[in-house]
Amino acid sequence: MNFKEELQKRVNEIEEIISTYLPAEEGFQKTVIQAMNYSILAGGKRLRPMFMQETYRLLGGSSKVVEPFMAAMEMIHTYSLVHDDLPAMDNDEYRRGRKTTHVVYGEAMGILAGDALLNYAFETATRAFEMEPSNARIGKALRILAVKAGIYGMIGGQTVDVEAVGQPLTREKLDFIYELKTGALIEAAMMTGAVLAGASDEQVKTVEQIASDVGLAFQIQDDILDVTSTMEELGKPIGSDEKNEKTTYVTIKGLDQAKADVERISKRAMDALHSLNREDAYLSALMESLINRKK
Amino acid sequence: MNFKEELQKRVNEIEEIISTYLPAEEGFQKTVIQAMNYSILAGGKRLRPMFMQETYRLLGGSSKVVEPFMAAMEMIHTYSLVHDDLPAMDNDEYRRGRKTTHVVYGEAMGILAGDALLNYAFETATRAFEMEPSNARIGKALRILAVKAGIYGMIGGQTVDVEAVGQPLTREKLDFIYELKTGALIEAAMMTGAVLAGASDEQVKTVEQIASDVGLAFQIQDDILDVTSTMEELGKPIGSDEKNEKTTYVTIKGLDQAKADVERISKRAMDALHSLNREDAYLSALMESLINRKK
Repeated sequence: MNFKEELQKRVNEIEEIISTYLPAEEGFQKTVIQAMNYSILAGGKRLRPMFMQETYRLLGGSSKVVEPFMAAMEMIHTYSLVHDDLPAMDNDEYRRGRKTTHVVYGEAMGILAGDALLNYAFETATRAFEMEPSNARIGKALRILAVKAGIYGMIGGQTVDVEAVGQPLTREKLDFIYELKTGALIEAAMMTGAVLAGASDEQVKTVEQIASDVGLAFQIQDDILDVTSTMEELGKPIGSDEKNEKTTYVTIKGLDQAKADVERISKRAMDALHSLNREDAYLSALMESLINRKK
Repeated sequence: MNFKEELQKRVNEIEEIISTYLPAEEGFQKTVIQAMNYSILAGGKRLRPMFMQETYRLLGGSSKVVEPFMAAMEMIHTYSLVHDDLPAMDNDEYRRGRKTTHVVYGEAMGILAGDALLNYAFETATRAFEMEPSNARIGKALRILAVKAGIYGMIGGQTVDVEAVGQPLTREKLDFIYELKTGALIEAAMMTGAVLAGASDEQVKTVEQIASDVGLAFQIQDDILDVTSTMEELGKPIGSDEKNEKTTYVTIKGLDQAKADVERISKRAMDALHSLNREDAYLSALMESLINRKK
């Protein structure tokens, strides 16, 4: 199997795991559940659960305890997109070529569906306790997930991002946003994978650094694509950052420097990955592919 | 000390515990933290953490492990109010006599502050693992908290409530809303208190029934007060349910029947409480006081 086939196989596996943990669309509260599932089944690269699973395997994990965490990870990522798209936030009507959640279900339900996905993420992750009630790794992983998704992680980055609309950003603030808005969830993914596999504190620290670099490279690449992509390739209008007058890595450093930085940072991450001395062929290829991705 | 003094003493204690767990207002993400703290420090009865703490004590709990859960409980309650008040939801400009969060900080920050509070609730609750890393009760309590706050709990109730605006509700749906929208968090509070104290499954079940009754009585009383209170007493305009054309317990059953039902349900809860055979003087008085509350 080449990398692309390997990737697709894993995406399928992950989507099967996620769907196991999705709530049934029934009961008086059916609408919010439909809105949740609509949002999470909209597709996407499933990168975060994939990074979690690969890190878990890389460090010797072999039980199903990681699976509820993988689903939880994607729910947290999805809720952040649903709320980001709201009229009071980025006001986006399309994502991945489909209408956004609040456009289909209305704004109130968009807010509720986001809340529900965030809450259901923790509800789902705590199902790991049903498998192993006294496994202290689960508590540790839960705490990492919560911290990295919150005000000292993703939400912290979003806050600065929201406040930055329409005004120039300092380099310092931009770094803060990039480190937290995208980086934090990749860190959460890889770190919880490592912790659940029983990694040492030192290994978890290395994994955090790798994830931080991957997140940064991914985000810079996103900025590059926002400028260079076409509607067809990206499933949303091009230049949306420009439309929203956002300072991005590209507006500060220029396109060429941004591209060079993606490469440099990815290489640093790769070196750190190899330093773990594990069989990392697929993870390496995955990280490589981020540099060259077109959407 | 009479009940009122006793109550105030406990509210002070609880607010001190909550403030221990509030994030410091610093960093680039300061605004969202200010909005979180503004929301949670707006006052309120602190009923949910109080019920948690009292149930914990009632069933023999005596460690600090309940405290992060108490703070988490109030954060979840607060986030639900912040999002409920948003323009796309109830569109309320005042709560407890103060401007609502989105009015002060803007709508985007209102959404983010709610998200942040919900996430921080789990972040805070998982701090219990730092005290007792392998205590299986913590995982069990976390799971109850998450389930009762989510689509099979509070959010489920909110969903039906949101969809009901402007159209008559069946009695069945109204019961569903009341059971979940208010009841679920009181159940979460008392059940996590019981579980953390090491209660038996049977005791947890009794506690769930008590909490469900308390929540129902509380919610009906809320409907009664919406009709009978003045702006001054309640800190918000009277008759807001009527304004929003909501079906309530009072519009379905009438004021007198509603009052009688509050009393009947509260008595049932009280009997169940006594059946636990513990020293429950304060909890009894607290439940009593809900029947006669004026705001």
